[in-house]
Amino acid sequence: MHSVGICGSDVHYWQNGRIGDFIVKKPMVLGHEASGTVIKVGSSVTHLKPGDRVAIEPGAPRDIDEFCKIGRYNLSPTIFFCATPPDDGNLCRYYAHNANFCYKLPDNVTFEEGALIEPLSVGIHACRRGGVTLGSKVLICGAGPIGLVCLLVAKMMGAAQVAITDLSASRLEKAKEIGADFPIQIKKETPKDVACVVQGLLNCMPDITVECSGAEASIQSGIYATRSGGTLVLVGLGPEMVHIPIVNAAVREVDIKGIFRYCNTWPMAISMLASRRVNVKPLVTHRFPLEKALEAFETTRKGQGVKVMLKCDPNDQNP
Amino acid sequence: MHSVGICGSDVHYWQNGRIGDFIVKKPMVLGHEASGTVIKVGSSVTHLKPGDRVAIEPGAPRDIDEFCKIGRYNLSPTIFFCATPPDDGNLCRYYAHNANFCYKLPDNVTFEEGALIEPLSVGIHACRRGGVTLGSKVLICGAGPIGLVCLLVAKMMGAAQVAITDLSASRLEKAKEIGADFPIQIKKETPKDVACVVQGLLNCMPDITVECSGAEASIQSGIYATRSGGTLVLVGLGPEMVHIPIVNAAVREVDIKGIFRYCNTWPMAISMLASRRVNVKPLVTHRFPLEKALEAFETTRKGQGVKVMLKCDPNDQNP
Amino acid sequence: MHSVGICGSDVHYWQNGRIGDFIVKKPMVLGHEASGTVIKVGSSVTHLKPGDRVAIEPGAPRDIDEFCKIGRYNLSPTIFFCATPPDDGNLCRYYAHNANFCYKLPDNVTFEEGALIEPLSVGIHACRRGGVTLGSKVLICGAGPIGLVCLLVAKMMGAAQVAITDLSASRLEKAKEIGADFPIQIKKETPKDVACVVQGLLNCMPDITVECSGAEASIQSGIYATRSGGTLVLVGLGPEMVHIPIVNAAVREVDIKGIFRYCNTWPMAISMLASRRVNVKPLVTHRFPLEKALEAFETTRKGQGVKVMLKCDPNDQNP
Amino acid sequence: MHSVGICGSDVHYWQNGRIGDFIVKKPMVLGHEASGTVIKVGSSVTHLKPGDRVAIEPGAPRDIDEFCKIGRYNLSPTIFFCATPPDDGNLCRYYAHNANFCYKLPDNVTFEEGALIEPLSVGIHACRRGGVTLGSKVLICGAGPIGLVCLLVAKMMGAAQVAITDLSASRLEKAKEIGADFPIQIKKETPKDVACVVQGLLNCMPDITVECSGAEASIQSGIYATRSGGTLVLVGLGPEMVHIPIVNAAVREVDIKGIFRYCNTWPMAISMLASRRVNVKPLVTHRFPLEKALEAFETTRKGQGVKVMLKCDPNDQNP
Repeated sequence: MHSVGICGSDVHYWQNGRIGDFIVKKPMVLGHEASGTVIKVGSSVTHLKPGDRVAIEPGAPRDIDEFCKIGRYNLSPTIFFCATPPDDGNLCRYYAHNANFCYKLPDNVTFEEGALIEPLSVGIHACRRGGVTLGSKVLICGAGPIGLVCLLVAKMMGAAQVAITDLSASRLEKAKEIGADFPIQIKKETPKDVACVVQGLLNCMPDITVECSGAEASIQSGIYATRSGGTLVLVGLGPEMVHIPIVNAAVREVDIKGIFRYCNTWPMAISMLASRRVNVKPLVTHRFPLEKALEAFETTRKGQGVKVMLKCDPNDQNP
Repeated sequence: MHSVGICGSDVHYWQNGRIGDFIVKKPMVLGHEASGTVIKVGSSVTHLKPGDRVAIEPGAPRDIDEFCKIGRYNLSPTIFFCATPPDDGNLCRYYAHNANFCYKLPDNVTFEEGALIEPLSVGIHACRRGGVTLGSKVLICGAGPIGLVCLLVAKMMGAAQVAITDLSASRLEKAKEIGADFPIQIKKETPKDVACVVQGLLNCMPDITVECSGAEASIQSGIYATRSGGTLVLVGLGPEMVHIPIVNAAVREVDIKGIFRYCNTWPMAISMLASRRVNVKPLVTHRFPLEKALEAFETTRKGQGVKVMLKCDPNDQNP
Repeated sequence: MHSVGICGSDVHYWQNGRIGDFIVKKPMVLGHEASGTVIKVGSSVTHLKPGDRVAIEPGAPRDIDEFCKIGRYNLSPTIFFCATPPDDGNLCRYYAHNANFCYKLPDNVTFEEGALIEPLSVGIHACRRGGVTLGSKVLICGAGPIGLVCLLVAKMMGAAQVAITDLSASRLEKAKEIGADFPIQIKKETPKDVACVVQGLLNCMPDITVECSGAEASIQSGIYATRSGGTLVLVGLGPEMVHIPIVNAAVREVDIKGIFRYCNTWPMAISMLASRRVNVKPLVTHRFPLEKALEAFETTRKGQGVKVMLKCDPNDQNP
Repeated sequence: MHSVGICGSDVHYWQNGRIGDFIVKKPMVLGHEASGTVIKVGSSVTHLKPGDRVAIEPGAPRDIDEFCKIGRYNLSPTIFFCATPPDDGNLCRYYAHNANFCYKLPDNVTFEEGALIEPLSVGIHACRRGGVTLGSKVLICGAGPIGLVCLLVAKMMGAAQVAITDLSASRLEKAKEIGADFPIQIKKETPKDVACVVQGLLNCMPDITVECSGAEASIQSGIYATRSGGTLVLVGLGPEMVHIPIVNAAVREVDIKGIFRYCNTWPMAISMLASRRVNVKPLVTHRFPLEKALEAFETTRKGQGVKVMLKCDPNDQNP
């Protein structure tokens, strides 16, 4: 491994030992946002050879089951997934992974960009499920790391204008820096008020809302804000049960779609990074050598910066 | 007009003078499930002539607005809709309607079948939004008139097995009669219990759930029951706000889609009725001449039978 | 194995030793329409056990490659496929196959129905690619075995009316028997004439045309006949290059889509057969014990009947 | 009217008096790429008022027919279309048009950009029918005005790399200028050779090919070049009948889709232009006052430059 990003879920497992029904019962290697260099390949592998620089898709189906067969392998209940117990992650020096889920990086894509494909994939899957396309008006709720990648991806897919909400002014500042058209700081507005503000700024209701906070009020805002016939994508996860204005969503045919991780995103992310038409580098705000992993995790835990990278190759700590 | 069916919404306007934000402020003709005979056509109409028997699609857009342009004219805010205030309905002897929304009935389709296209359209739009197709396993929540048409339509679209829930044994009896594979009487089961029962009977989780009751517990059951990657369609409308297990839906990518009326359903319904491959006649359980409209409305209000037909042509009271 | 159907391609390999670029270079077992009983399963197989009756999907991807990942594994260039050189088929007593591509048959589905899922799958994939749905008007060109399964499948998907063309009156007779609404015997009509005849009978242009003959004239008819915005599905394969009225197709947005085998069809075919709502049994017109394979192949080669079944289990020659 | 672009079809009507079955039988005003200022609106128009700057969508359906109802109004046989006989175009000072097909321009979008929405719409409709999305690899055949707008649109939709072919080095030069990654000058290569060259440059087969020349050899190249499961979009129109490698397309499931004009493109084009993320201004290479229309038409006829604009407002000849 060369570069491995730290994700909120890594911190969660470290601090709480579980996420929902996924419980850490024995020591587990963390990390699932990784890139590195191929050392050895199996005898039937033809698309990779030692020395190739690769990005790693952490979820690799174990079975070609009903979900895998229809192209939604992320829903496969038996999938292997890095750093979801009991499967080990790849925050380490050496690591073996299904070659079909290792993707060769072009020369002009860095290791860190390769590692960032994982969070980018969440944004790609969310925007794709939402149907973001040329000229879309998009609302993103939440300007944390995932909200920011959704913003980047929406723009790359041709979104005309993106409004983004958050409680934190500094996060919104970052969002503006990387392309948000309308940063909206939420204070005490009701969900309906938020919807009005968004409509006023965009000069129309957004076609798609991508909810990245998981907060009940924010999900409600997302329903009220989205235009009839549009889609609300649920990315952030909060309380198990929420109160939502279901009639408002139903009679305006605002579809509500969640996402579970992602599928079929690495090839398009690599193509897009190789085209140099998007700059994801500003997302990396901190770097630590693998030896200082604890410090790195503390940084993420405190919510400092956007993305913290661990550098696993002692001979190459470059991006 | 020849035959006009009575819908729950007609009764609701009659009894309460409003449905949500639609308020009856002046006398309004009821009725929107109608068929009749053309008496006169405008000069630019070429597809109809006097004497043609037609079914009437009650919603006719007034503007070719953004929704109409993309083929979702049911979402147009300025649409004309029979018996939605302030627009008059067609429960009367003579009535004028946009010719583009009058569809010629083939000789082998009766007037009453023509009038039934309206409730069938709700089922078509719901099943289509849910993606019912060959071999689908479907759960329908609620065995009232709309649940029954959803059942009929799901089967016509190729659904392999349909489970249907209701509180009432007699409604379930009717559902079984017209093709339900697994009628399930709900008593005190929790939503998760209901999901288990459904899975046990279908031998798998249903691909699509069509919720026709609007009840909170039933919506919850619908989410728990639907298989990962499937769709929950909301047809029934109940309380404005409901509590739902949003995380369960989101991480299993169970999409939640409401419907508002329908669009683009009359031609396929007519083709299907003309093919004689579906029998909707059992849905009509009562008939009254127009003069006995009050009695007819009382019958519907009491929930007797499935569909009550008013016969508006004094010279022809046949089906 | 219990029952194995003979396909035109089996005969072709037997007679010519090749189909296009697929060349038989060493002895190869034929057969890819098969069902049988599980004798033994690998240690990681959980969905099957010895004694289970199964239908076999002959194409099983070797790699989870780019095509497999998006749910179109039929396009995978490295796929294993029964009786496509150099891969052996399953016309034999004992045979080993990827368990993920063996599907358990319900008790009420016979072995022969299980074997017929293979040709049915061609029809399913074709109708699905064409978008056949409730109320569709469909034209099928060619009433051979594949045309007939397309007819059956189109009806099961809700098609309202199906017209079918062929040169042979006896094939059309069979088509009528199993549900064709308009059998059309082609004589010396031009492609445009055929389109007119079809439109006259259906009382409109078909939404979807499924071309099963591969003949140039028939492809041309398919383009002229299909309504604007509809789809022509190419199932039959004829000459490598054909002359087609491309401008007619393009400016009317008639999409032209081919199919290569099928994917994701076994589960829906099994659900559908188990529902007993379709009767495929009339497709089997001849049966031979495995020992008389040569005679069976001669029968198919001569174009007698529809489907010839080889019975591989000496202790059970039942359907 | 303020600015009206000249299209190849305008020149064709001028020179030949017909395009296919559309025949000019009486004097007809040309022009269908127009923008201007509202002078007067009908009493029921609420979204526009005198003084508003608007872009005009030249095709406005006369009937809400079956095609209009499903959102494909471009296929409506009774559609009004500027400068398609017998309908007059808008290359004039004053012109009346269906208000639902006049779109208000934001202040930061110029009249000429407004007029360019018409050719951009061809690109949008083509790329959308082809499924261009984030990371797509695209081949465009033909670098004339329409090839160039397809290039611009594909990039805006997120295409990672675009290869473009033409016979003319100067056209390819222009294509490179506005963003083509791989301009390919065609000389005597066979269609299969062209496909190889494209694959070599893109390092893979393109997902989508947009054919803008109409030439038989180019359509053949498009089929051979497109990856399995991809789409060939036919935009250019050439000979009525062409010879194509149909088996190659069919067995690799390369879909062939034509386009007829466009629908539902103005709003997304305006959003996109307003976002200032695309620069279409280089497409305008010549400007003439309305009085010099003949000279302007001669310029287009000679194939000089890309887009020629006629300036219809004597008081404002600005872009």
